[in-house]
Amino acid sequence: MSDDILGQLMQVLESRKQADKDTSYVAGLYHKGLDSILKKIGEESAETIIAAKGSDNGQIIHEMADLWFHSLVLLAHKGLSVEQVLQELERRFGLPGLEEKASRQQSKR
Amino acid sequence: MSDDILGQLMQVLESRKQADKDTSYVAGLYHKGLDSILKKIGEESAETIIAAKGSDNGQIIHEMADLWFHSLVLLAHKGLSVEQVLQELERRFGLPGLEEKASRQQSKR
Amino acid sequence: MSDDILGQLMQVLESRKQADKDTSYVAGLYHKGLDSILKKIGEESAETIIAAKGSDNGQIIHEMADLWFHSLVLLAHKGLSVEQVLQELERRFGLPGLEEKASRQQSKR
Amino acid sequence: MSDDILGQLMQVLESRKQADKDTSYVAGLYHKGLDSILKKIGEESAETIIAAKGSDNGQIIHEMADLWFHSLVLLAHKGLSVEQVLQELERRFGLPGLEEKASRQQSKR
Repeated sequence: MSDDILGQLMQVLESRKQADKDTSYVAGLYHKGLDSILKKIGEESAETIIAAKGSDNGQIIHEMADLWFHSLVLLAHKGLSVEQVLQELERRFGLPGLEEKASRQQSKR
Repeated sequence: MSDDILGQLMQVLESRKQADKDTSYVAGLYHKGLDSILKKIGEESAETIIAAKGSDNGQIIHEMADLWFHSLVLLAHKGLSVEQVLQELERRFGLPGLEEKASRQQSKR
Repeated sequence: MSDDILGQLMQVLESRKQADKDTSYVAGLYHKGLDSILKKIGEESAETIIAAKGSDNGQIIHEMADLWFHSLVLLAHKGLSVEQVLQELERRFGLPGLEEKASRQQSKR
Repeated sequence: MSDDILGQLMQVLESRKQADKDTSYVAGLYHKGLDSILKKIGEESAETIIAAKGSDNGQIIHEMADLWFHSLVLLAHKGLSVEQVLQELERRFGLPGLEEKASRQQSKR
């Protein structure tokens, strides 16, 4: 399922590059530039942390969706694909159990 | 593709709940508790921002994978599913173009 | 100099507890509650990081002032004093050179 | 009081520019460079938020001291002074009550 959703979302985000910055939230973000997108990532990660310290699971989902959404906007803005992130996740977990930790450390540049 | 990866990753993360905290990085995070997971989310979002201000796209992918990875660990720790986040993203984008922004605002509690 | 400024600022922030939430920004933050103050801390720390990756020193000063300002609002909201933070900083640095690092580690709970 | 502490701390941080990176934590941070300092700011702001959602005021003081400490390290690394941040705070609060909010908005670039 996620395949379709994240992939489709990236297509929508890509198409917003031609949208009117005054009517599309995403086109407005692109127009304001990288720093505006990064501020949103900082903001939404703080909101995810705050929500997770509370007891409303719906709020956690809500804030994490915001965080992932703006992550995808960053990828689109940078001309990167969501597949690259997923492949990086896959690469790390292609290794069996106990090697997981060592592999994470090695991959940390 | 992402469907398989995120879903499979969640299964791996779920299985780590029975793993040895001294040999599995994820089991160690669960054991240290919520705050440790949230510190990682704060850390990795800062590293994503710092990477995005640089010129190494591989580093952006690397840090975003770290950020998403620890987001999934949080979901698993809270007993939530990645599908809930994806459905929230889908819900917002089930609406055609111009309504996007209004819909985001309304959904902001 | 800083003595006067931070101390005086805390007095102003204290007095804002009786101010009208619709006309005082700080009274509005108190009224919205802890999470709103914490979101600002998350936001301003991200903006400090982003500014520091740029070349405008004035912007770094500006964002750090915002970060400290909202730190003080948090202290006031929690009934804590700026002296407590300064004493903690002093305590760590009352020790001569080489012991600095060990002392920092020990104080890390 | 804070005058002495922040000013003295900045002098200590300045002197650490000549210290051995292997024995001084701060000299090590300078050596690793800007990104390492910024990661600490991201990390400590997340830890301040997490502590503030808990009930241990000592932990809040502890994490905020860490956040301010690394803010000062950033200033020293950039060749900026703590007085510049304090003057920015003073400038905003030189104005009486009701004008506070408008002044904050204007100063936001």
